Amino acid sequence: MSEVILCKSVSCADTSGKHIFHSFNRRSPLPSDVHIKIRYSGVCHSDIHCGRGDWGPKSYPLCTGHEILGEVVNVGAEVSKVNIGEVAGVGCFVDSCRGCEECKEGEENYCSGPGGFRGTYAHKEREDLVPGGVTQGGYSTDIVVDERYVVKVPEALNRAEAAPLLCAGITCFAPFIQAGVRPGMKVAVAGLGGLGHMAVKIAKKLGAEVTVLTRSQSKVESALAMGASKVVVTTNEEEVKAAAKSVNLVYNCISASHDMVFYLSFLKNRGTMIVVGLPPEPIANLKASALAGRGLSIKGSLLGGIKATQEMIDFCARHNIVSDIELIPATPEAVDVAWERTMKSDVKYRFVLDTAATLEKEFDERAKKRAKLA
Amino acid sequence: MSEVILCKSVSCADTSGKHIFHSFNRRSPLPSDVHIKIRYSGVCHSDIHCGRGDWGPKSYPLCTGHEILGEVVNVGAEVSKVNIGEVAGVGCFVDSCRGCEECKEGEENYCSGPGGFRGTYAHKEREDLVPGGVTQGGYSTDIVVDERYVVKVPEALNRAEAAPLLCAGITCFAPFIQAGVRPGMKVAVAGLGGLGHMAVKIAKKLGAEVTVLTRSQSKVESALAMGASKVVVTTNEEEVKAAAKSVNLVYNCISASHDMVFYLSFLKNRGTMIVVGLPPEPIANLKASALAGRGLSIKGSLLGGIKATQEMIDFCARHNIVSDIELIPATPEAVDVAWERTMKSDVKYRFVLDTAATLEKEFDERAKKRAKLA
Repeated sequence: MSEVILCKSVSCADTSGKHIFHSFNRRSPLPSDVHIKIRYSGVCHSDIHCGRGDWGPKSYPLCTGHEILGEVVNVGAEVSKVNIGEVAGVGCFVDSCRGCEECKEGEENYCSGPGGFRGTYAHKEREDLVPGGVTQGGYSTDIVVDERYVVKVPEALNRAEAAPLLCAGITCFAPFIQAGVRPGMKVAVAGLGGLGHMAVKIAKKLGAEVTVLTRSQSKVESALAMGASKVVVTTNEEEVKAAAKSVNLVYNCISASHDMVFYLSFLKNRGTMIVVGLPPEPIANLKASALAGRGLSIKGSLLGGIKATQEMIDFCARHNIVSDIELIPATPEAVDVAWERTMKSDVKYRFVLDTAATLEKEFDERAKKRAKLA
Repeated sequence: MSEVILCKSVSCADTSGKHIFHSFNRRSPLPSDVHIKIRYSGVCHSDIHCGRGDWGPKSYPLCTGHEILGEVVNVGAEVSKVNIGEVAGVGCFVDSCRGCEECKEGEENYCSGPGGFRGTYAHKEREDLVPGGVTQGGYSTDIVVDERYVVKVPEALNRAEAAPLLCAGITCFAPFIQAGVRPGMKVAVAGLGGLGHMAVKIAKKLGAEVTVLTRSQSKVESALAMGASKVVVTTNEEEVKAAAKSVNLVYNCISASHDMVFYLSFLKNRGTMIVVGLPPEPIANLKASALAGRGLSIKGSLLGGIKATQEMIDFCARHNIVSDIELIPATPEAVDVAWERTMKSDVKYRFVLDTAATLEKEFDERAKKRAKLA
């Protein structure tokens, strides 16, 4: 067996959400594997929920991150999708059953095999490859992934700004394509955060007329700059009234508890609300008659398949769509702050770890310091 | 102005839901109007809810009924859809704004004009035609309707059994067509009543594999006879477990309060639950994450447009799909009993008033009796 790859990471130490430097091994590339040297890694809300144990107990240290972009440094003998030296991306999952109807139809994001898809972090590893192991994500120097779960990233895209496309981008793009977003369609985006700002940009370039629904007067200007034709400040009753029944689609990416039924009021008859945010409470006061009477739908959506992810990233490259980011060093201190600020929506609009520039260097320097002290 | 048409009816007297004989006028046909002599009229749950005041106060006497089938006895000069002597049907609405995008696209059922579509009964009449008037439905001898809101009924269909297609039939057919129900698709029907039994028959003839979800062991045999491949008795835990995540579509036509989230469990990932029943309570314990995680949708649906209604009735004629009915006299006593029994789901599966054979005769005889007594 060839040698495993020593991988350095910024990992979550425990449910406090505090980070530490930590190293672990990646498997040596199998014939169908791609070894990526990670350059940039986005910070997603899910990292924080998972790291803090909101979604059940995890084993620590846990390296999160599923908006991964880097350079291919090695490939197995069977790999044909990418070549050494090319830019590649990895999103929210690194494997799936490959046999269920969802996988066969290219929607691995809804894999109905045992346990569903294998998440990029905090999921059980393949028992034959890493017995008892848990997947580790992108706040790290290296990742090894089967080529089926890798996308090729066009050179044209700014790499740091493109990293968030791997989760935030596809989470908008996939349901938009399914809903047939196109010129003439009116789309409202509820919540202008990491997801929402991508949704505005993508819907706009798909040809839709975009309205942003936000509580913050302060976001009006940036929403318009991103391509929204209209912004409704939802605390303003008159604006809300004027926008009633005005759009075909509401893209609801609010993850905090909120009144979902309120956002249905912006839909024209026959409209659809796509829900991708995951507020912890059940939807309140939703009557079947409110849906039936106006022919409304609520459609849940989770990520997108690999085929759609490739289409998304090619689409974004053609239209120069990237995320607005704050680039931060890949150090425990910087990630701690980024997590805190993300939870307060205090980021415009996505933190991205400058992994290649900082992680290995800082990791090694601190290791040296510790050695000296000892 | 030509003469109005004297129309005899069985009308709801007040919120008690008790019926009386009652006469009123129908307008003389306008150039685009069709005058139909009503032969059969189905009894729908909505008649009862509306008549009893569950949906707000109404003016009485109120003649309900929106599953209307009869013979064309007169047409205005501009009418081209039907000829005198042909069989025609009228469903749940008799007019709409004709100018909104929904009307223009043939989905008058979602008319977004002021007040929405004009319901066949208990809606405001056109002020220019019947000032201050209220529409009156099909438990009557005659109806006059603009040809745009009339469908032509193929001769092949049994007329009494076809009457319920005008509401129950289209309420299944329209969302099935929109959802692409076709061979290879697995459809579950939740609730085997007036709507559900039509849904089974229509889904089957569209090529789907149909599962019926019912609480009643007693309905298993009839469900299979109607074309279901499988029946899940929902009180049987093992049957429920075995049927988890097995269908693409759940057609939920349960109108009583029930656990909607339970019925989502039968959906495969990416499945859709169509809701047409109108339980009074909000949907309980539905989390956005339950929809998003599996890519599930809940789609409300109300009736169908006139174009779809014509397609539905032609489809049913081709496949000999009709309702299972209990034919009853169009007398106040019989309708009172029918309403009581419908509310207890004690009907297989739809009451139909034998209007032509009984209404006029009984109405006149009682009038004579009253005259003698006076």
